[in-house]
Amino acid sequence: MIAKRLRESLDSSICIRDIFEEGKKLAAVYGADNIFNFTIGNPSVEPPAIVNESMKRILDSEDALALHGYPANVGYPEVRRCVAEHLNKTFGCNYDENGIVMTAGAAAAIAILCNTLLDMGDEVVTFAPYFWEYKSYVTSFYGRLVPAFCNMETLQPDAWAFETALTPRTRFVIINTPNNPTGAVYTKESIKMVTDILKRKQKEYGHPIYLVSDEPYRKLVYDMEVPYLTHYYRNTIVVYSYSKALSVPGERIGYIAMEPCVQDMEDLIAGITASIRYLGYVNAPTLQQRMLLDCVDASVDISIYKRTRDILYEGLCDIGYTCIHPDGAFYLFVKALEDDDSHFCEEAKKERILMAPGTAFSGPGWVRVSYCVPDEVARASLPAFKKLYDRYMNE
Amino acid sequence: MIAKRLRESLDSSICIRDIFEEGKKLAAVYGADNIFNFTIGNPSVEPPAIVNESMKRILDSEDALALHGYPANVGYPEVRRCVAEHLNKTFGCNYDENGIVMTAGAAAAIAILCNTLLDMGDEVVTFAPYFWEYKSYVTSFYGRLVPAFCNMETLQPDAWAFETALTPRTRFVIINTPNNPTGAVYTKESIKMVTDILKRKQKEYGHPIYLVSDEPYRKLVYDMEVPYLTHYYRNTIVVYSYSKALSVPGERIGYIAMEPCVQDMEDLIAGITASIRYLGYVNAPTLQQRMLLDCVDASVDISIYKRTRDILYEGLCDIGYTCIHPDGAFYLFVKALEDDDSHFCEEAKKERILMAPGTAFSGPGWVRVSYCVPDEVARASLPAFKKLYDRYMNE
Repeated sequence: MIAKRLRESLDSSICIRDIFEEGKKLAAVYGADNIFNFTIGNPSVEPPAIVNESMKRILDSEDALALHGYPANVGYPEVRRCVAEHLNKTFGCNYDENGIVMTAGAAAAIAILCNTLLDMGDEVVTFAPYFWEYKSYVTSFYGRLVPAFCNMETLQPDAWAFETALTPRTRFVIINTPNNPTGAVYTKESIKMVTDILKRKQKEYGHPIYLVSDEPYRKLVYDMEVPYLTHYYRNTIVVYSYSKALSVPGERIGYIAMEPCVQDMEDLIAGITASIRYLGYVNAPTLQQRMLLDCVDASVDISIYKRTRDILYEGLCDIGYTCIHPDGAFYLFVKALEDDDSHFCEEAKKERILMAPGTAFSGPGWVRVSYCVPDEVARASLPAFKKLYDRYMNE
Repeated sequence: MIAKRLRESLDSSICIRDIFEEGKKLAAVYGADNIFNFTIGNPSVEPPAIVNESMKRILDSEDALALHGYPANVGYPEVRRCVAEHLNKTFGCNYDENGIVMTAGAAAAIAILCNTLLDMGDEVVTFAPYFWEYKSYVTSFYGRLVPAFCNMETLQPDAWAFETALTPRTRFVIINTPNNPTGAVYTKESIKMVTDILKRKQKEYGHPIYLVSDEPYRKLVYDMEVPYLTHYYRNTIVVYSYSKALSVPGERIGYIAMEPCVQDMEDLIAGITASIRYLGYVNAPTLQQRMLLDCVDASVDISIYKRTRDILYEGLCDIGYTCIHPDGAFYLFVKALEDDDSHFCEEAKKERILMAPGTAFSGPGWVRVSYCVPDEVARASLPAFKKLYDRYMNE
């Protein structure tokens, strides 16, 4: 009885969540310690202590009726101001509270933007490999997601692929750096190339093409700086989630940010405000919003992720696997040892290694290893990866 | 640059939120104490103390990484079980955790059901007057909302209007009792009439028509019992929010509930789970979910709302206004003193009374008075209502 359009999408999708559930079943059979589950991006580093301290302080000190009551759909003015000031301080930007909308995470923000910007058949371009859920967000609002494939040697955007993906129906482009699933951070050169093409195409088509920068992993970078996109392109809409920076993905808190130079911003804010209501969000949860007044600068200890990355990256390279060195997020993209990455993942299960097939991310021939796991698990997995490798080499 | 479909809906809608914002401006001019703002349903009764106590207990006692991490999309099994047991105990039902899905409130739940059940052009029927946002939820997913007008003497569903609103494209019916905006509680006879028609129509069309019971005001009833719909109709999907029962509307927590007898339930749950992801919800906020383990039985002191209702209902009737006696929610539906209810609301502003025009709820010729205000405000407003009445009578 469910909608045909949803049925089709369910039948065709490879759901990482299903793989994760399967992992739980395997863990029940073999014991959790005997399974190497690299399938899902559930943070493994403790939230900074200030998260809980702040929530308790708020519960103790604020009027309960006001705290738990309805704020404006776009969020508390003081929280929006606090986010704007944080961004201005960190990136030398020009935000003010009118350009900040609090949302229940980045996923919510993208769905809200889809409802705000897409008429039937409108197009959204993103760089592949990409977070598989982008397609669901876009198609739920009768839009089309058009992938622009990266160079698979470097995992950086490719100029030709990007330019040919754009059409007069392109309403926005989603860019995700540091990237899920590859862990790649797009270089300044890549960003310059992408935004130069966008500027040209905007002019050619005579209407704005927004660049939606999906940045949940912005604070999870290890050896380099992530270019901040508003410095390159005026029509940038930043979408952020605190899920990874504060290890609070279950609490659903993030924002949409636009500098005053974004074209038709007032119109966009009106549309976003309506969409927050029309999709049933009403507002981002209030306690989580107010918590940011204390936590906007806080961060998890990213050196822990970096250590785990190094164990796995070096370990897998030493065995002989081809991996792209990941500069950010907590994902490692590894070349499958056969063309069929789904089958390769099945073979890996025999060594009790669970990974996500690259095909789910439009990155066929590769697999995603989520390394938000304890170091012991990363270390203990290496002999299993070695056995898997040897099996393929001896075939 | 926003979507045409959204632009049309923005241009045509009367937004109560705008009226509420206008109220704030008036308050700034005249002082908050000199404005009688009856426009929005922001609870005015303190949350039960256990809400904050529970949240603090959880923050103090649970592992932070697990507490703030991703749960399953449908919510924690123990929370879903707790909700099922509460419903079974209270209403003698047959729920189990598999039929409960935690959502970020009832608005989220309805949007999720729209995405799950509607293909383009599919229809949803609701009883008018109705909560204006229903139309936005349905049209965001390219569906059509078809109103079935109530008998405007009794504000109860009308058999003829309902039966003629149903077509083979009707996928579900939204019923909201106690009702926003009228405060009416639909009687057992009304429910029997509605469900008898649905049973007949299901058979005629050869497919299920779900009855979505939107119940945020279920605990806010003052003199009677609200019929529990699953006892009348097998294909009932209950949608609930704790916003009003616990005075926590900003925290966004509620659920979807289906008994095992609901047709194609397994399919529905799969579709709902996908929709939770596709619309960017991911999961209902985790702290708010876990809070329910302590608060599922708690409730605000509804005698306070009842007292305010009596002051206003009796006061307005004494002046000469025509009001329908409201048995539940915190809304009073009052006949405007002229045909044009929007103009009547403008006239009321001259007495510093802010109300929502019935037209916004497909209830033209009436106005909605939200009485979630302190008793003093209700009492102090009566002379202003009297002046307004006299002005119309002396014209």
